[in-house]
Amino acid sequence: MHITILGGGGFLGRKLAQRLVADGALGGRAISGMTLFDLAAPAPLDAPFPVRTQAGDLGDAVALAIAIPEDTGVIFHLAAVVSAAAEADYDLGVRVNLLGTLAVVNRCRALPAAPRAVFPSSVASFGGGQDARVADDARQVPTNSYGAQKAMAELLLADASRRGFLDAACIRLPTVVVRPGRPNKAASSFASAILREPLLGLATNSPVFPDFRLWICSPRSATGWFLHAATMDTAPLGLERGVNPPGMTASVAEMLDALERVAGIEARRLVQIVPDTVVQDIVRGWPSGFVPDRALALGFAPHESLDEVVRAFVAEDLEATRAERAPV
Amino acid sequence: MHITILGGGGFLGRKLAQRLVADGALGGRAISGMTLFDLAAPAPLDAPFPVRTQAGDLGDAVALAIAIPEDTGVIFHLAAVVSAAAEADYDLGVRVNLLGTLAVVNRCRALPAAPRAVFPSSVASFGGGQDARVADDARQVPTNSYGAQKAMAELLLADASRRGFLDAACIRLPTVVVRPGRPNKAASSFASAILREPLLGLATNSPVFPDFRLWICSPRSATGWFLHAATMDTAPLGLERGVNPPGMTASVAEMLDALERVAGIEARRLVQIVPDTVVQDIVRGWPSGFVPDRALALGFAPHESLDEVVRAFVAEDLEATRAERAPV
Ligand SMILES: NC(=O)c1ccc[n+]([C@@H]2O[C@H](COP(=O)([O-])OP(=O)(O)OC[C@H]3O[C@@H](n4cnc5c(N)ncnc54)[C@H](O)[C@@H]3O)[C@@H](O)[C@H]2O)c1
Ligand SMILES: NC(=O)c1ccc[n+]([C@@H]2O[C@H](COP(=O)([O-])OP(=O)(O)OC[C@H]3O[C@@H](n4cnc5c(N)ncnc54)[C@H](O)[C@@H]3O)[C@@H](O)[C@H]2O)c1
Repeated sequence: MHITILGGGGFLGRKLAQRLVADGALGGRAISGMTLFDLAAPAPLDAPFPVRTQAGDLGDAVALAIAIPEDTGVIFHLAAVVSAAAEADYDLGVRVNLLGTLAVVNRCRALPAAPRAVFPSSVASFGGGQDARVADDARQVPTNSYGAQKAMAELLLADASRRGFLDAACIRLPTVVVRPGRPNKAASSFASAILREPLLGLATNSPVFPDFRLWICSPRSATGWFLHAATMDTAPLGLERGVNPPGMTASVAEMLDALERVAGIEARRLVQIVPDTVVQDIVRGWPSGFVPDRALALGFAPHESLDEVVRAFVAEDLEATRAERAPV
Repeated sequence: MHITILGGGGFLGRKLAQRLVADGALGGRAISGMTLFDLAAPAPLDAPFPVRTQAGDLGDAVALAIAIPEDTGVIFHLAAVVSAAAEADYDLGVRVNLLGTLAVVNRCRALPAAPRAVFPSSVASFGGGQDARVADDARQVPTNSYGAQKAMAELLLADASRRGFLDAACIRLPTVVVRPGRPNKAASSFASAILREPLLGLATNSPVFPDFRLWICSPRSATGWFLHAATMDTAPLGLERGVNPPGMTASVAEMLDALERVAGIEARRLVQIVPDTVVQDIVRGWPSGFVPDRALALGFAPHESLDEVVRAFVAEDLEATRAERAPV
């Protein structure tokens, strides 16, 4: 079975590829090959099976046909223009997040058998705010273009599944913490920065107060859910192909407590609360809690503790982040 | 103010145009001109203001720019590939119902002021079945491609409204009864046929049992809601631009009772119950009831009685339907 990761050069695409290489198989089936597809060719990976890295654009049907060969069993469709960029450039967001997903559907129609398609949708497709406890059947009323495009892509993939073009499972990911690399312009950047920067020995600010709550998950949980979505029986999903996975609600204070437990009070002291009403106005619309009963019943693993999230970042990503950010 | 009706040659587009011509104004504002746009040029209309009829395809940006001139205050975007056709031809449905709506959004971005955009979404964007009492905040889990495309178009229009490209109100229409003309291949064709055919003196079959319930509205109510959607204050809609209007639940038996009251027992005797499991399997997924509290609070008019629906068809459409269907 061939596996294709669209957006395979991104943060989660890379994590997922590494996990598949380590496992060597998926749901008991041997992996015959893997394609990592992204705008720029992803870095090569040592693996017990052939790994192709391909540069291309989702919107290029020829490139997509190469990226998704006829024996593809599973597509992880992670290629996306993320929230701040989709808000800044409407056309780009529509082109990649909506029309790019349509291009994936159309490629799948040409395959001899409908592949499993795993798609990360987002908490950003919901509103609700700090007091939300989002139920499994809640309406998606997005507060930004990225969330709207994710919700549309879910509808497209559900309908394509009903028609037998592909077999989709959409995981509405929480904000993934800890993201390695540098702070970025995303309104959620602080959620990772308040853990990552102190662990690098750097000072950083929290634009929100300590009692501000976020719905988060770790890259490890996200990757685990992707693998479950790739191998689970999709029949119980019925027409509703979207799942709210069992992330966790964490306040800024709880995250800093975990930081302190893992890295000491000096690390925590590197974080200052510096209120920023622009960031607050955006992030206070995001739901801070879900009731993920359906996902748990479908076998999606519950989330690990905050301490484990911090420790996993230290073990797996801290060195690479330090190296990436070292002055040359 | 200029008004454009996309799909202006269709059933509801034509009804709406006639109503606007009769009113001569919209929400107290004078109409300076109207464009009726459809695949084939709509028939001309006598009006107290200039009416342009234009043949073109939604997907043709140049045609759309002509159809929606700079002084357009209201767009009624009624052009669509309806349910049976969108199910039979996936690409056509996507191209018109989804990408066509994107083309409308893009045209509006080039206008000097954001126009009001009135869009009929559909009961077909919900599941639920005979026992459903769909609440205002219910998720749309479509059972067909048409419904999925309508739900995606709603998301696109809500996001475009948030961004200020246009100012949308989406009315999730029930099955419109009585549709003039001929029986067609739509699974819902019987809903109009059991009234229309007997009124023409023709025999017809009901593929469902007398206790089968449908969520319906008249062309008169649909047109009235379009006008309200064109003139209402949209601020109370917030991010949720879709409204479930106050249609009515009617069983086949109740519709036949109304037929009998208006046209006599002979008319009713022309309808035979001939169960058709193919039709039943499709239509039993449609929700038969809604709780349209929000629409009523927003000023959408409650529905008239079934007797009035039948009488209005007799008064307004029976002659034209008879003429259209006479052998030449
Ligand atoms: N990280 C999060 O917090 C989070 C939360 C919810 C959902 N998600 C979703 O998970 C997925 C992966 O997220 P991530 O954090 O790894 O993002 P990322 O930005 O690191 O990776 C996305 C990748 O997609 C690629 N891409 C963009 N446009 C493309 C195009 N036209 N053709 C081909 N490739 C293209 C980018 O180059 C990038 O490498 C995305 O779909 C994202 O929307 C992420
Ligand atoms: N009639 C109903 O029961 C009902 C119920 C729910 C929603 N709606 C919606 O109301 C609207 C009007 O419905 P109707 O019953 O008048 O349908 P209709 O089929 O009579 O009218 C739709 C019109 O759109 C035109 N059209 C199709 N593709 C086009 C394209 N590419 N470019 C330009 N024009 C195009 C068609 O030629 C047609 O005249 C549609 O959007 C429909 O989905 C109708």
